[in-house]
Amino acid sequence: MEPGDNYQLEFRFTQNQVEDFARLTGDSNPLHLDPDYASRTLFKKPIIHGVLGASIFSKIMGTLFPGEGTIYLSQQLEFKRPMYVDTTYKALVQVNDTNPDKHTATLTTRVLDNATDKLVIDGEALVMNRDRI
Amino acid sequence: MEPGDNYQLEFRFTQNQVEDFARLTGDSNPLHLDPDYASRTLFKKPIIHGVLGASIFSKIMGTLFPGEGTIYLSQQLEFKRPMYVDTTYKALVQVNDTNPDKHTATLTTRVLDNATDKLVIDGEALVMNRDRI
Repeated sequence: MEPGDNYQLEFRFTQNQVEDFARLTGDSNPLHLDPDYASRTLFKKPIIHGVLGASIFSKIMGTLFPGEGTIYLSQQLEFKRPMYVDTTYKALVQVNDTNPDKHTATLTTRVLDNATDKLVIDGEALVMNRDRI
Repeated sequence: MEPGDNYQLEFRFTQNQVEDFARLTGDSNPLHLDPDYASRTLFKKPIIHGVLGASIFSKIMGTLFPGEGTIYLSQQLEFKRPMYVDTTYKALVQVNDTNPDKHTATLTTRVLDNATDKLVIDGEALVMNRDRI
């Protein structure tokens, strides 16, 4: 991995996945699950849990870039816009800096709306991978 | 909510939940799933996905403190120590600051090992709740 290297992945979630995430984690906030409740909020319809949206970074860094064996050291997340089900988003992970001695890298981690390119999640991660960094 | 208010919750995850999380998010990093692979790492056995561990904050803030209707604006996470299945952890969420005009609060979000009180996840969240902040 070198500074500037990057990885992009399009993804989407379904309402079934949101319900599975709510069951798994216990976060049954009706903002994510109840269309009537959500219709009375500024979002108008249920939004995806922020942590579920951000899990795309865990998938990318743990299985694709840098991949297997990656250890998460930190993650900063700013939830700039709501994420909705059945909507295509694009995750962008870009290397800012590497420390080959420590096998660590800082990466910019972003989610954009795929249709509008608007920034949905912004953030930065620090990861370690002894074989790949 | 006032500065200093806080909420504590003991929790634990099972390997079945880790497997469900891997399927749901696509993060099939063998560090979380494969005992043979994990035995050759510094952790010696599979560790819980950091994002799954951090989901306890989403549960607490979305359903308990401040609860229903909470909107996540940001979350910073430092993964200080590995989390293991079938181990009891304690989540601590404490109010640092509130802005009643904007209905926002910054909260310290931590996970400790329940037996040793060692810090496992450190971080800070910014949330909005129009009815409760």
